[in-house]
Amino acid sequence: MNIDVFTLFPDWFRWFGEQRHVRNAIERGLELDHVDMRATSPLDGGRVDDTPYGGGAGMVIRVDVVEAALEARYGAQRDHRIVALAAGGRRFDERLALELAAEPRLSLLCGRYEGFDERVHTELATDVVSIGPYVLSGGELAAMVVCDAVIRKLPGALGHADSAVEESFSEALEGAPEYPHYTRPVDWRGHGVPDVLVSGDHARIREWRLEQARSRAKG
Amino acid sequence: MNIDVFTLFPDWFRWFGEQRHVRNAIERGLELDHVDMRATSPLDGGRVDDTPYGGGAGMVIRVDVVEAALEARYGAQRDHRIVALAAGGRRFDERLALELAAEPRLSLLCGRYEGFDERVHTELATDVVSIGPYVLSGGELAAMVVCDAVIRKLPGALGHADSAVEESFSEALEGAPEYPHYTRPVDWRGHGVPDVLVSGDHARIREWRLEQARSRAKG
Repeated sequence: MNIDVFTLFPDWFRWFGEQRHVRNAIERGLELDHVDMRATSPLDGGRVDDTPYGGGAGMVIRVDVVEAALEARYGAQRDHRIVALAAGGRRFDERLALELAAEPRLSLLCGRYEGFDERVHTELATDVVSIGPYVLSGGELAAMVVCDAVIRKLPGALGHADSAVEESFSEALEGAPEYPHYTRPVDWRGHGVPDVLVSGDHARIREWRLEQARSRAKG
Repeated sequence: MNIDVFTLFPDWFRWFGEQRHVRNAIERGLELDHVDMRATSPLDGGRVDDTPYGGGAGMVIRVDVVEAALEARYGAQRDHRIVALAAGGRRFDERLALELAAEPRLSLLCGRYEGFDERVHTELATDVVSIGPYVLSGGELAAMVVCDAVIRKLPGALGHADSAVEESFSEALEGAPEYPHYTRPVDWRGHGVPDVLVSGDHARIREWRLEQARSRAKG
């Protein structure tokens, strides 16, 4: 799989590649690149934005700047998913993460300031995606979240055993797997560990975890 | 305001402070610190995790390790909001961002591996928060998202004009403000800009933007 993140701040992503699951995926063939949209700007002095039509605060990233960045990277022909990150987009979830992880190539477009010219969303992107109902200062954090969730789905990103557990819960629950974890000490300031977990009865443990996860998924 | 992020990977947050709105907030008094939970671990060799009771893949961060980190930072008395980031928590949104931004002090606890011992959630944290219905590899990205959204709410983090626009839309819409932005060129490959935005009629422009944002908020 190839993931290209288009951003004005490629350096901000350096830490991201240090995560173990990302390194694992890269060793197994993932290409994760960060493309500086400023470097290919057709405007003087690497400008990328302009004031909004209709007035208002903030600057808007121009559609021709994004187009130039995509063309420099892929040429005129683009037949893969191009995802713009924006607060008003389709809500990101495990299902979309799985869907995107099945693509051979993925572009993520990170806005800044007031965001992209709307024509980036309607004419250049294939998807507009939001990671949640809150306002962020740019698309970079959203792109990191999408990358993290997608890369976890790639073969070999997690250890073998992890993957198996993950998958069984994802299938059963169709969503974020989550059940309570406990580790030593068995008694901490009077707060113990559920008896079932120290029972050694693996069928009961599995049943308990599924119940816990199901009741949390319901909310 | 003081925000402390408890993590095993404090270096990963370095880029975060380079963002303009974060620098603005720090200049106006925000203290944003990253606390290495490994440094205060009571276990040999700075260990922080252990295998899960009941078996299964992955490691679980111990409750006594988190307790030691909180005590080293605040002493035994803790009367402020302590937020653990976890996929199964209360869903983060603009309302919660505003609520947290009003606190004088905030702690964010970032899990890794399979997450925290459940007693961190039930006995040490005041809140368990999730940024969305997807699985991430740790709490760090979630903490960055919460910090970003919260810091935007602090006085002076955004330019004065930005804040005013933001607030008016947030009040009107009770959620993520979002309306289409356009900038030059006015015609791009046959795709133009809505007439109203170049009409110069500011009352109509404001009305159009509110309508657009409302219809997007509905879904």
